[in-house]
Amino acid sequence: MLVDHAMDGQHIQNELAFCREVLLQIANAKGIGTAIPLAGSATAANEAAIQTLVAPEGTLLVYSNGIFGDRLGSICRAIRLPHRILRQSSVVPLQVSELSAVLDADPSITHVMVVHCETSSGIINPVEQIAELCKTAGKRLLIDAVSSFGALPIDLATLQCEALILGTNKCLQGPPGLAWIIADEKTLHGCEGNARSLCLDLWDQWRHFELHQSFRFTPPTHVIVAFAHALREYQKEGGQKVRLQRYSQNRDCLVSGLRQMGFKPLLSGPMAAPMVAAFYPPDWIGSDPIRFSQHLADHGFCLSLRRAAVPNTLRFGCMGNLTPREIAGVVKAIGRVFAEIGSARPAMKGEKLHASSR
Amino acid sequence: MLVDHAMDGQHIQNELAFCREVLLQIANAKGIGTAIPLAGSATAANEAAIQTLVAPEGTLLVYSNGIFGDRLGSICRAIRLPHRILRQSSVVPLQVSELSAVLDADPSITHVMVVHCETSSGIINPVEQIAELCKTAGKRLLIDAVSSFGALPIDLATLQCEALILGTNKCLQGPPGLAWIIADEKTLHGCEGNARSLCLDLWDQWRHFELHQSFRFTPPTHVIVAFAHALREYQKEGGQKVRLQRYSQNRDCLVSGLRQMGFKPLLSGPMAAPMVAAFYPPDWIGSDPIRFSQHLADHGFCLSLRRAAVPNTLRFGCMGNLTPREIAGVVKAIGRVFAEIGSARPAMKGEKLHASSR
Repeated sequence: MLVDHAMDGQHIQNELAFCREVLLQIANAKGIGTAIPLAGSATAANEAAIQTLVAPEGTLLVYSNGIFGDRLGSICRAIRLPHRILRQSSVVPLQVSELSAVLDADPSITHVMVVHCETSSGIINPVEQIAELCKTAGKRLLIDAVSSFGALPIDLATLQCEALILGTNKCLQGPPGLAWIIADEKTLHGCEGNARSLCLDLWDQWRHFELHQSFRFTPPTHVIVAFAHALREYQKEGGQKVRLQRYSQNRDCLVSGLRQMGFKPLLSGPMAAPMVAAFYPPDWIGSDPIRFSQHLADHGFCLSLRRAAVPNTLRFGCMGNLTPREIAGVVKAIGRVFAEIGSARPAMKGEKLHASSR
Repeated sequence: MLVDHAMDGQHIQNELAFCREVLLQIANAKGIGTAIPLAGSATAANEAAIQTLVAPEGTLLVYSNGIFGDRLGSICRAIRLPHRILRQSSVVPLQVSELSAVLDADPSITHVMVVHCETSSGIINPVEQIAELCKTAGKRLLIDAVSSFGALPIDLATLQCEALILGTNKCLQGPPGLAWIIADEKTLHGCEGNARSLCLDLWDQWRHFELHQSFRFTPPTHVIVAFAHALREYQKEGGQKVRLQRYSQNRDCLVSGLRQMGFKPLLSGPMAAPMVAAFYPPDWIGSDPIRFSQHLADHGFCLSLRRAAVPNTLRFGCMGNLTPREIAGVVKAIGRVFAEIGSARPAMKGEKLHASSR
């Protein structure tokens, strides 16, 4: 009989147990952390982590150098949590000394939160150094590892952070609709009643999982099964090191190909993530990026013009089920778009306005 | 290029626009309401509706006669919203006069919320009468229509309620992981800043949709596409009337078959929903429901033993892609399970405890 909670069945329970185990392995968090799933976007998981792990009388310092760091600030504002925001340039790596100065100046700060890889620019923030500083300063650390987890090495045992927030649909290559929090289990014990939300109460979700091995509310069953499959593919491919290598090859191939087409990378060196790369496009694209993206879509490649940390940059993803073969394909497609519209008239003013309204 | 927000693409936008249009048609809400999608469970949609539509200085009266009504109370407690709970028997239809007395006695109540169909028992609450009372008393009404929408007739133009909360995975037969709120558009305009959550801020989600025709945060793309497909199947089948007819046939076939096996329906008459039916099982099952459900699962039918409003009842779903043929199948399977364990020893005490701990 297909009753309403058939999705709480044994198969889903087994898949969830498998996912929790693998995620803890990847994070080197066994014996320290627990992996808690949540239906919804990674932003919901970030909000659940903040709502639950930072007590209402605490103060969270958000370090931001991009759109996704700023979003953490939006969460704090929405939930009326005392917070500070240290906003820095999107193209300069975090200066730990500046963070240290802010912590010294404001002893009310109890927690620090940072985005590991800013998908809006492709910059990598040095979470290892931030974690060291937090240990010294006696602050608790939350890390938004949404677009880094699974590709960049992340070691919870070394970082000793309170929580890692993960996405399923970035480097782990599952579908969206499910997010995970790997939280320090000792910390969680003290977090009952912190959240001002039922659905985003991580403590309650965790307790329910410990008791029943299932979601409190209807789980996104199909996404869970697909995510478990994605984790099996991850293991089969060889795990974090191999995936990082593949994404790095993708990125190198992309940078080299796009340079030849007149693109200039926004970032370079160790701060440039292999998962996503932002470029200043050549003028013929920059004058009408919407038209460019529409033509590129006709060749089978979708670009998002939203959520770029730096104006007039275009971002290209190198993560997902891609190899240098597909990267070469997009470079070739851009060549075709150039032939189609490279020397075309500049955009009319109205079209440009439409672009900025997105 | 598969960038991180490729899922914001044209296909998803088209599918979402289609879904919004069809949902408004089903609710007869065109020109009044707007359909807002949210990633996550229907409980998240209930929380978003409460967080956003009831101002922090308002008071919500929750009418409950089951697990899902009680959950609305849990939401109010978690978000610290002033509220009252009118809890009544799970097997007696709502007495509008009692609701009226509560509203008269407490003028601080601004909103009323009720579950249309309690999935925990299968009881239907008379939302039309409640809506009439709310109009007379000048109270705003929210309806949790999660397990009724799409099968029972619901007319927003007549009900004049503030919001209907829908599930995708009940009578609309889509996968879980997405929920919808059909909200009165005039009301929404005044709800900025009510929510104490970023992700569950319905106002913000709505405004973003109006501006960008897309989710604020990563949408559950695969579930959206599958849900649009489910709505096309819904239209093809003939819509609400035909689906109600099929579920009613399923339920009638189930009641008749299970009566012969010694089951007694919990409810009958107009208050008994065609979507889900609860039964007192015969003694050989009641003494060990876990063992029964395990054997039944071996025959391909999954029963959930959780979330029953009335102790010692078992619930059978009649919704989903089912016809009387599948219903006959479960009756036959129960006959087989009877042959296997019908005269078996009663459960040990420990096993029973395990059952209730779920």
